[in-house]
Amino acid sequence: MTDQKIYQASTTAPVNIAVVKYWGKRDPKLNLPTNSSVSVTLSQADLRTHTTAACSASFGPEDSLLLNSSPQDVSGARTQACFRELRSLRTALEASDSSLPKIATLPLRIVSENNFPTAAGLASSAAGFAALVRAIANLYELPASPTELSRIARQGSGSACRSLFGGYVAWQMGEKDDGADSLAVQVAPASHWPTMRALILVVSAEKKGVSSTSGMQITVSTSKLFKRRAEIVVPESMLLMEKAIKKKDFQSFGEVTMRESNSFHATCLDTFPPIFYLNDVSRAAIRVVEDINKKAGKIIAAYTFDAGPNAVIYYEEENTDAVAGVLNGALNGLDGWQARDIKSQDSSDLDARAVQVLKDGVSRVILTSVGEGPIRTEESLIDAAGAPVKK
Amino acid sequence: MTDQKIYQASTTAPVNIAVVKYWGKRDPKLNLPTNSSVSVTLSQADLRTHTTAACSASFGPEDSLLLNSSPQDVSGARTQACFRELRSLRTALEASDSSLPKIATLPLRIVSENNFPTAAGLASSAAGFAALVRAIANLYELPASPTELSRIARQGSGSACRSLFGGYVAWQMGEKDDGADSLAVQVAPASHWPTMRALILVVSAEKKGVSSTSGMQITVSTSKLFKRRAEIVVPESMLLMEKAIKKKDFQSFGEVTMRESNSFHATCLDTFPPIFYLNDVSRAAIRVVEDINKKAGKIIAAYTFDAGPNAVIYYEEENTDAVAGVLNGALNGLDGWQARDIKSQDSSDLDARAVQVLKDGVSRVILTSVGEGPIRTEESLIDAAGAPVKK
Repeated sequence: MTDQKIYQASTTAPVNIAVVKYWGKRDPKLNLPTNSSVSVTLSQADLRTHTTAACSASFGPEDSLLLNSSPQDVSGARTQACFRELRSLRTALEASDSSLPKIATLPLRIVSENNFPTAAGLASSAAGFAALVRAIANLYELPASPTELSRIARQGSGSACRSLFGGYVAWQMGEKDDGADSLAVQVAPASHWPTMRALILVVSAEKKGVSSTSGMQITVSTSKLFKRRAEIVVPESMLLMEKAIKKKDFQSFGEVTMRESNSFHATCLDTFPPIFYLNDVSRAAIRVVEDINKKAGKIIAAYTFDAGPNAVIYYEEENTDAVAGVLNGALNGLDGWQARDIKSQDSSDLDARAVQVLKDGVSRVILTSVGEGPIRTEESLIDAAGAPVKK
Repeated sequence: MTDQKIYQASTTAPVNIAVVKYWGKRDPKLNLPTNSSVSVTLSQADLRTHTTAACSASFGPEDSLLLNSSPQDVSGARTQACFRELRSLRTALEASDSSLPKIATLPLRIVSENNFPTAAGLASSAAGFAALVRAIANLYELPASPTELSRIARQGSGSACRSLFGGYVAWQMGEKDDGADSLAVQVAPASHWPTMRALILVVSAEKKGVSSTSGMQITVSTSKLFKRRAEIVVPESMLLMEKAIKKKDFQSFGEVTMRESNSFHATCLDTFPPIFYLNDVSRAAIRVVEDINKKAGKIIAAYTFDAGPNAVIYYEEENTDAVAGVLNGALNGLDGWQARDIKSQDSSDLDARAVQVLKDGVSRVILTSVGEGPIRTEESLIDAAGAPVKK
């Protein structure tokens, strides 16, 4: 009689938003990037994926993944690569210690939930693959460090490798063909610079543009400016950004963040045919950040945009009134201000036209801050009988 | 008693729209560019500046310029440079031929009119300075060639140098510090490829963005991608574009035109703070051009944008139905279709969302074609008494 025991472990994992941007793969199969990148991990109180990984001879015969109650295809090369790599580590562990249960080959059942609307267009694949890899690593009791796991998560979704750490995280592009040195490392923990805040302006749904996966490869193959970004601009940005984080120098952090976002979107526009992620609402968000900084006489707010129109605005806690408060004053009617105790401030220094575009085009606000990496939890999404927990 | 005779001469001059873009000066005073450029001169039947230059001892004491009935400041360095250079050529001419009247030092009175709305945001300074230089050269009976005059017009407004020729015109950036070799030359006359058409979607007035004069210098000093555009991308574009024009190869002409527009706007976005000339209406124009080309299975339409949101769409006469006809089908309510005999065609292959954005954001259409250079005219804007003609 086969052991029908259900093994399981759970974790949460965070979203990260890059301040030095990843765009372009030198190896699409292994998700090896054309340049290094840096991100800030956001608090899981506001944005996180919660994942339970379980395995049992009673499951299967196939591996399965349920995300927000919807069955997902796990046959794709990316998910398969993660499963294969993690099973391989568990197999080695079992071989080295015969007292361990033989679970590496058992069918996996993964159940995952996001605490934020998928429709918000926030890059959820990073948190998703980080949680998946971390949960299975917990299930398999792997001694692997977050950096070792980042090599695996990277194969699921490039930017997922950065969500294995809290705080300020660099993804070193590496040089090796097999990607062994294309890994995430922590530049500084959240506790080093805990006052970093992020305000996300979620732009009302627009027909989905070009996916980042296909988009970045069209950029690599057609943009004539891209090579300069990958070879010259980003290496400079990496040095400046790591230094800014270490010195907690927001002035420099903010300038590099905004320049990096612009540089990335410039190479998208230089793609043929061009890729547009920024729209008029995004431009209006840039304008009001410029107005806020002009008023302050220095950079106290920094915008950045990923492969979509949502604006992420970084600022320090001490400037909450001057940044979040002023935006609350301008966009008072939106959902989201309640989450943190933001007092509405006078917004008359903001360009009136830009404010109107934001009022018409932003659907909600998310207020968050720098946060921790994946957190192991006993809260399981799979019950004792192996079924997904109904919520 | 002084000679009170009024000397005068008149010309019209065309607008030109670049297909390899000028953006960035290596010498702001002399308007010496960081890269060469190419443009198509547009027909003066649709867009032109009409200028009369007169001089007389009875004028003055200052030089004056009336544009569309409004007095203009002529004390600026650019206008002064044009006056000075032209007077210098006339002075030399008078010195070499004592039979000529001594008019070089007489006060100038210039009267100028555009046949298109200034508010349309069409680059009118090119036509304006070309007409001013050509009219004074006519007044002074200078034997200077258009290329020699281009050196002068360039100092008024960089792109004006290209409006001294019809057809397809290159502005060779030159190498000399004094700009003596930064000149316009004709790549091919309009008669070489007379079937080139241009359709301009005039976007409803938006608050004026960054002026091109200041914008381009901020790009030069802050964009980290700009150097690659000036040094690598544009030289390649120049070779491809001159070849495409000589071979009348629209496929190549169109691709280089669109890539050049995108590359230029990408360096604007990479400027810090970023400069945006394209808006959501511009993006919609790009989308419908892509849809038209997709339907045709090849490039039959090519968009380009200058320092503003208006789209200029080039196409060949044989594709009038597939380009202008289809756009007429989509944007039937606009003014401007009457100007040429465009039949409305089925536009169901165009993205419906993009069409709606265009319907909401385009105020009028201008239909035109490749055209001739400045044309001398006897129609004067200054009467026998030296007064501006009332229209």
